[in-house]
Amino acid sequence: MHNYFSSAFKLGILGGGQLGKMMLYDTRKYDIQTYVVDPNPEAPCKIACNHFEKGDLMDFDTVVNFGRKVDLLTFEIETVNVEALEQLEKEGKKVFPSAETLRKIQDKGVQKEFYKANDIPTAQFVKYETKAELTEAIIRKERQFPFVWKSTTGGYDGKGVRVIKEQEDLIPVEEVPCIVEEMIRFKNELAVIVARSVSGEVKTYPVVEMEFHPEANQVEYVICPARIEAKVAQKAREVATKVSRTFEHVGLLAVELFQTQDDEILVNEVAPRPHNSGHYSIEASFTNQFEQHLRAILDLPLGNTDSKVGGVMVNLVGDENHEGNVYYQNIEKIMQMDGVTPHIYGKKQTRPFRKMGHVTIVNKDLSEARKIAEKVKNEIKVISRD
Amino acid sequence: MHNYFSSAFKLGILGGGQLGKMMLYDTRKYDIQTYVVDPNPEAPCKIACNHFEKGDLMDFDTVVNFGRKVDLLTFEIETVNVEALEQLEKEGKKVFPSAETLRKIQDKGVQKEFYKANDIPTAQFVKYETKAELTEAIIRKERQFPFVWKSTTGGYDGKGVRVIKEQEDLIPVEEVPCIVEEMIRFKNELAVIVARSVSGEVKTYPVVEMEFHPEANQVEYVICPARIEAKVAQKAREVATKVSRTFEHVGLLAVELFQTQDDEILVNEVAPRPHNSGHYSIEASFTNQFEQHLRAILDLPLGNTDSKVGGVMVNLVGDENHEGNVYYQNIEKIMQMDGVTPHIYGKKQTRPFRKMGHVTIVNKDLSEARKIAEKVKNEIKVISRD
Repeated sequence: MHNYFSSAFKLGILGGGQLGKMMLYDTRKYDIQTYVVDPNPEAPCKIACNHFEKGDLMDFDTVVNFGRKVDLLTFEIETVNVEALEQLEKEGKKVFPSAETLRKIQDKGVQKEFYKANDIPTAQFVKYETKAELTEAIIRKERQFPFVWKSTTGGYDGKGVRVIKEQEDLIPVEEVPCIVEEMIRFKNELAVIVARSVSGEVKTYPVVEMEFHPEANQVEYVICPARIEAKVAQKAREVATKVSRTFEHVGLLAVELFQTQDDEILVNEVAPRPHNSGHYSIEASFTNQFEQHLRAILDLPLGNTDSKVGGVMVNLVGDENHEGNVYYQNIEKIMQMDGVTPHIYGKKQTRPFRKMGHVTIVNKDLSEARKIAEKVKNEIKVISRD
Repeated sequence: MHNYFSSAFKLGILGGGQLGKMMLYDTRKYDIQTYVVDPNPEAPCKIACNHFEKGDLMDFDTVVNFGRKVDLLTFEIETVNVEALEQLEKEGKKVFPSAETLRKIQDKGVQKEFYKANDIPTAQFVKYETKAELTEAIIRKERQFPFVWKSTTGGYDGKGVRVIKEQEDLIPVEEVPCIVEEMIRFKNELAVIVARSVSGEVKTYPVVEMEFHPEANQVEYVICPARIEAKVAQKAREVATKVSRTFEHVGLLAVELFQTQDDEILVNEVAPRPHNSGHYSIEASFTNQFEQHLRAILDLPLGNTDSKVGGVMVNLVGDENHEGNVYYQNIEKIMQMDGVTPHIYGKKQTRPFRKMGHVTIVNKDLSEARKIAEKVKNEIKVISRD
């Protein structure tokens, strides 16, 4: 067994964004050497890893050459070159989550087919290879409004997902392969983070409840635990566990779920990595999601996923009317509030709805945390100021 | 007011050890540019800051030149050149804690005189400029055994402090100025961390209880909250607050205290920085000590000092029979236990009693955390293995 605690072990991370940056904090607890590659030479991870390099994550040679430098490879974004991961695995390199698992998740069409084939409950869908195919289906009345349109690849932070209510909504839609899903009239959007280690130990985090910003299609509040019935929470954790096991996923898997009007649980989609819906865990959980991901991929025992206190997470996104050098207006005011911790990702430029950071609010009383979260949301603004 | 949240602000830290390293994690939440100087080119901070340089912290020019590069200067070790801090303050540089405060603390003789002058309860003491002076006092029977000998400067982690029970114990004592204190027959050794911001806002952490290793004179367990009566805890927090205010200290001040047999509170000594006795706060507190230190010196609102859960901290010190490349035996075993988080400082070489890391055990039930801490202590060993 490797000795992760004496500086010799080299962990590589594909992607240098905020998820990688927060994961790097926890590598410091373990004293692992860290390598990061990202196309952006000023990526948030740059200041927090041992070795940073600039490179295209979709380029085969870049990923293979990077992977050969490390003992174990993981990623913080799923748009990476899978053929390169397969090549590295052939060479005997440990890659977690595996290339095979990532292949099943990276393309949303393949992901949905996988749910269908494995009897995992999910919304009805149809795949279209081109925008023209979709348009024809509408003309032939095979497809009714409203529906949810999703690009099969590259979707992130609300990009690549649209609610289509009428013909005009399709005009800005990209010319890419897509899936179209029925609109679920859900009671709640939920998420469960599942940790599964190399040895197959599995633990789920409590169910969280997500509230989306109505315009930006980005999560506005994440609330842990979700304010739902225990039996619904139990079912959500069971479904999420099944998804993780069926993918034979190693590491963290964030499973986004719908709770339907009749309390069915449907899988919306998954992310094979630490996830925005788990940021609350830094302050609220016994073991935060980033430490848990490391435990899982290093095949260490998984930590306690329970919460110490109630947690609410607010995303800090760029104000829709501002673009330029970022300024966090009133951040001092929110820091006066009880149990409030801001996390700033270190991006210098703000843009409308760009994820710039998040704020966690913890409290022994969850409803109190939720109230404070609303005050936080009303007070802080991510604007530009030169 | 400075904008600490948009990457432009430069924080300098004198000293690159584990305290600095843990402080750096929290600077990442705020996105501050960080500069560190330390004599050891492989100091733990090196991998966690933006700009690292090798330099002697007692050298006037090194400290002045380093300080001129940053907007605000703090330290994680108190053996730094104070004249250099005074020079920087003259030039208008912000230095927190201030040179004036550090002068009163750095020399334990001066520190004790300060307590006396300000009516702060502390053990009786006598200062001796040389070892010969002390020996003469013993010969003249002015000084009885046992007593506590402390070097006036440079004491750290049990170095520079000795319990002298008989004449022979004095043989290995260094030829340096010292203070000699009466031995306090205490019920408990306690500590209180006080945060005081630039604007003078003050908050105290709950009282912690310290158990020392009988041979190494290093803390073995730190338990929060201390298992003492509420009125004793209240008194301890009041005394600590008085100490912080009297020093006009800015930042974190760790106040080590004795609870005497008749429940008096005596100040043992202070450390003007984050402290080993506050490491539990990373997992247990609403605001950890490192974040709180940053809030204090940046003049941000102080965070909630309450605990979310009970916490016990175990120091990981080098086994007394081992020296060489470090190996953390059974670390995987302790990670199976509930609520256990190891922190490894990244020192490659172990030596008898060297501080190599710590483990925090948190639990809603403090007595359960204490039991698990004992299991941790019995299981893990810091040894060498080549």
